[in-house]
Amino acid sequence: MARFVVDVMPKREILDPQGKAVLGALPRLGFEGVLDVRQGKRFEIEVEGEPSDDLLAQVRKMAEILLSNPVIEDFEVHVEEHTVAEIAQEEGR
Amino acid sequence: MARFVVDVMPKREILDPQGKAVLGALPRLGFEGVLDVRQGKRFEIEVEGEPSDDLLAQVRKMAEILLSNPVIEDFEVHVEEHTVAEIAQEEGR
Repeated sequence: MARFVVDVMPKREILDPQGKAVLGALPRLGFEGVLDVRQGKRFEIEVEGEPSDDLLAQVRKMAEILLSNPVIEDFEVHVEEHTVAEIAQEEGR
Repeated sequence: MARFVVDVMPKREILDPQGKAVLGALPRLGFEGVLDVRQGKRFEIEVEGEPSDDLLAQVRKMAEILLSNPVIEDFEVHVEEHTVAEIAQEEGR
């Protein structure tokens, strides 16, 4: 089984109201010195077979067609061995 | 300036309707062999100062208090030099 991650973020020139809301809330919670926050999406995708350039190209196609809106979002695709759930478990949360 | 990424994902035992919707749509778009899709959030956070254990601990606290709901979500925090926008630009998209 191959695991891929697709990260999708609003383009730099696009307003990001969710990120701005977080940025505004941080000082009220006592966090100082934060310059910017952008909020996007993360997809963890499990595919049959071993990681390969061919599978990576397929996942990139999914990102282009379904997971992102290329007019307002950038995306990045990579192979990832460990899910966030696994890392959190290792760290004992 | 230090850049951190906070990845927030639904816990394994929590239903993820957005991920399931993507999983259901993929075969209709001609993508076969996808076993699972989970959808979560990615935050790109810029903080004053150089990356340090102290700043990392602060961002972890933000993730706990504001960016995730620990009842239903896991999170992971790391330093990241390049944003998704920068990577997409390098790849010529």
